[in-house]
Amino acid sequence: MSDDSRDFQLNCPLPIRRYPRVMVAHGGGGRLMNDLIRELILPAFDNPILNQTMDSAALRVPAGRLAFTTDSYMVQPLFFPGGDIGSLAIHGTVNDLAMVGARPLFLSAGFILEEGLPMETLWTVVQSMKLAAEKAGVTIVTGDTKVVDRGKGDGLFINTAGIGVLEHDLEIGPRQIKQGDVLLVNGDLGRHGIAVLAAREGLEFETHIESDSAPLADLVLTLLGQGIELHCLRDLTRGGLASSLVEIAEQAGLAMAIEEKSLPCRPDVRAICEVLGFDPLHVANEGRLVAFVPPEQAEKALVLMNEHEQGKGAVQIGQVTGIDCKGQVTLRSIIGANRIVDMLSGEQLPRIC
Amino acid sequence: MSDDSRDFQLNCPLPIRRYPRVMVAHGGGGRLMNDLIRELILPAFDNPILNQTMDSAALRVPAGRLAFTTDSYMVQPLFFPGGDIGSLAIHGTVNDLAMVGARPLFLSAGFILEEGLPMETLWTVVQSMKLAAEKAGVTIVTGDTKVVDRGKGDGLFINTAGIGVLEHDLEIGPRQIKQGDVLLVNGDLGRHGIAVLAAREGLEFETHIESDSAPLADLVLTLLGQGIELHCLRDLTRGGLASSLVEIAEQAGLAMAIEEKSLPCRPDVRAICEVLGFDPLHVANEGRLVAFVPPEQAEKALVLMNEHEQGKGAVQIGQVTGIDCKGQVTLRSIIGANRIVDMLSGEQLPRIC
Repeated sequence: MSDDSRDFQLNCPLPIRRYPRVMVAHGGGGRLMNDLIRELILPAFDNPILNQTMDSAALRVPAGRLAFTTDSYMVQPLFFPGGDIGSLAIHGTVNDLAMVGARPLFLSAGFILEEGLPMETLWTVVQSMKLAAEKAGVTIVTGDTKVVDRGKGDGLFINTAGIGVLEHDLEIGPRQIKQGDVLLVNGDLGRHGIAVLAAREGLEFETHIESDSAPLADLVLTLLGQGIELHCLRDLTRGGLASSLVEIAEQAGLAMAIEEKSLPCRPDVRAICEVLGFDPLHVANEGRLVAFVPPEQAEKALVLMNEHEQGKGAVQIGQVTGIDCKGQVTLRSIIGANRIVDMLSGEQLPRIC
Repeated sequence: MSDDSRDFQLNCPLPIRRYPRVMVAHGGGGRLMNDLIRELILPAFDNPILNQTMDSAALRVPAGRLAFTTDSYMVQPLFFPGGDIGSLAIHGTVNDLAMVGARPLFLSAGFILEEGLPMETLWTVVQSMKLAAEKAGVTIVTGDTKVVDRGKGDGLFINTAGIGVLEHDLEIGPRQIKQGDVLLVNGDLGRHGIAVLAAREGLEFETHIESDSAPLADLVLTLLGQGIELHCLRDLTRGGLASSLVEIAEQAGLAMAIEEKSLPCRPDVRAICEVLGFDPLHVANEGRLVAFVPPEQAEKALVLMNEHEQGKGAVQIGQVTGIDCKGQVTLRSIIGANRIVDMLSGEQLPRIC
C-alpha cells in the first residue's frame, strides 16, 4: 500500500471511503453530493467562509483595485514528478494574479469529475490543493462539483478562479516596457514540460527531472517591496518563453533580443529536448517568469531574486532593443548567428497544464 | 442553411472560419490560440478590461463586501429550447451571486473544448453568452481556453466565476430564517429539466416547453430596494425545490411545511413528469428561486415579484413551522396527507446544467 493509500484509509471520512469511485450521483445536487462536499472537500479547505456553503462567498476586501483571473487545468497524467493537477491549479492561478503585481487572496475551485475516478485520487488531489493554497497564502472560499458520465471527461479537470488585491497604482504590462529594459528570468527553463511528458510516456531518464511548478507571488511582491520597477511580467507556461516574448513584443510593438548562451537550462533537460526534438524555448514552465526591468536596476533585481526561494538561478537573458516598431524577438545563437523567434502554431506538448 | 450558419458565415472573422473544427493546437498557447481569442472571443465580449488580455484583469470595485462564486456547466445537449450552455453559464453564476443579495459585476469564462467541436458551435455559444451577459448587466473580464483531445471531453464545458458587490450589510442565508417566515417561489417549476431532457432524447410533446433559464439578480435587487426583508434565498437548480429546501432545513435546523396544491407547475410539465416517472419537486430549474420572508411582507413581496419579468407567477408555497429542531420538510398533499420530503441520492436527470 502506498503512503497515499494509507493516508486515505486513515484520514478520509468513512462516508466517502464507502464509495471507491466517483458516481454520477456525486454531482447530482442530492445526498451524495452533499456528503462528498461535507466529508471530503470542506475538511480539506476548512475556513469559515467556505464552511458556510452559500451560493456565493461573501468577502471583505480592501478598497481599491482588484485582480481577477481564471484557468482550467487538464494536465495528463494527473500526477507527475514535482506536482499534480491540484498544486498546479493553485500555482497557475496564483501566478496569473502575481503577473499584474497583485497579492493573491481568494480562490474558487470547480471540479469536473469523470464517473469512475477513484475516490482516493480525488482525495489526494484535494489534499495537495490544500497544501499548495496554504503555502501560497490563499484561501479557497467557493467551489463547485460536477460529474460527467464515463468517457465524457478524462478523470479530473479543475478550474480555479482567483481574486487578488493591487496594493499599488502601478500598471504592470507590455505598454510600460521601455527601450533598454532588460529581460530577467527567475530560473532554469523547460523542466515542467519534460517532467509531465516523462510521466505520461513512462520515459525513464538517467536523471530525475521535477516540474518547476511553484507560486510566484511572494517573489514578485518582494521585488516590488524593494523598489524594483517591474515594467512587465509574464509567466512562461503554455508555449514557453518563446510564445510569451513574441506575444509581448506584438502587443506592445517592441523589438527585443535574447542571447542563447544566457538561457538557463539544465544540461539533462537540454539533452532530453535534443533527443526528443523539442526546443527548450517552447517548453512550458509553471514556476518561471520573465521580468522587464530598467537596466540600472538589473543587478539589484537579480540579487533579490537569487536570495528568494523562487528565484535561485535568476539571470539576465536579453534586452529591449527597439520600441514603436513591429514586434520582433531575435535570438542570438551561441555561434553568433541571429534568428527570429516565433510562436508555434499550437504547442509541442499538449495537456501540460 | 440555418440562421446560425448564415450568421456564422457573415459575422465570424475569416481566420476562424478557415478552421471548421477546433483542433488541439487551438489550446496550445501559440499562434492558433491567439487567433481564436483575438478573432472569436474578444470581439464578442468586447470591453476595455478584457481587451488588455493580461494574465489577470484589473478591476475597480467599490469598497466593502464582495460576493464570489463559481460553477462549471456541462449540460447535454448544448442547445435546448429556451437556452444553451452559454446563456446557462451566465445565468447560473449571476444567480449564485444574486442569492446572497449581491449585484453581479464581473464574470470570468473558462472554456474546455473537445478537439473536433464545430467552430460554428463555439461561435454560436459565445454569441449567446454575449447577449446573456449584456442582459444581466455583467462584464466578462477574463478567460481561459483549453482543448482536450477527441474522446476526452464532451464537446464543450464552460466554467464561469463571478464577482458581485454587496451594497448592504444584510446576511441573507439559512441562519436568518425565523419561525413563521413564508416561502415564496417566483414562478412555475420543472421546465428547465424537462426542456433539456426532451432535447436530449428527441422527445416530442404536444406542447412546447422552454427552459425557465433567466438572470434573477434584478428581481432580488428590486425586492431589497423596496424594503422586503429577504431572510434567505436559494436558486432551485440541481435537485430542484426539494433538495434546496431540505438543505436549508438541515443547515439551519428548521422545520417547514409546503402545500402541494400551491406548487406552481404547468399542467403539461406535470403530465410529462407523471408519464416519465419524475417528481416536479426534484426537477431542476434555472430561473427559479425560493425566498424566505416575514409573513407580514408576503403580500407586498408577491405583488412586487409578479410585476417583475422574472417573477410572473410568483406564489406562496409554504411556511416555516419550527426552529431549533432537526431540519425537516413536510409536504401536505392535495388529499390532505403529510409526507416527509427528502433529497434524492443523486439527480433524476443528470447533465442538466
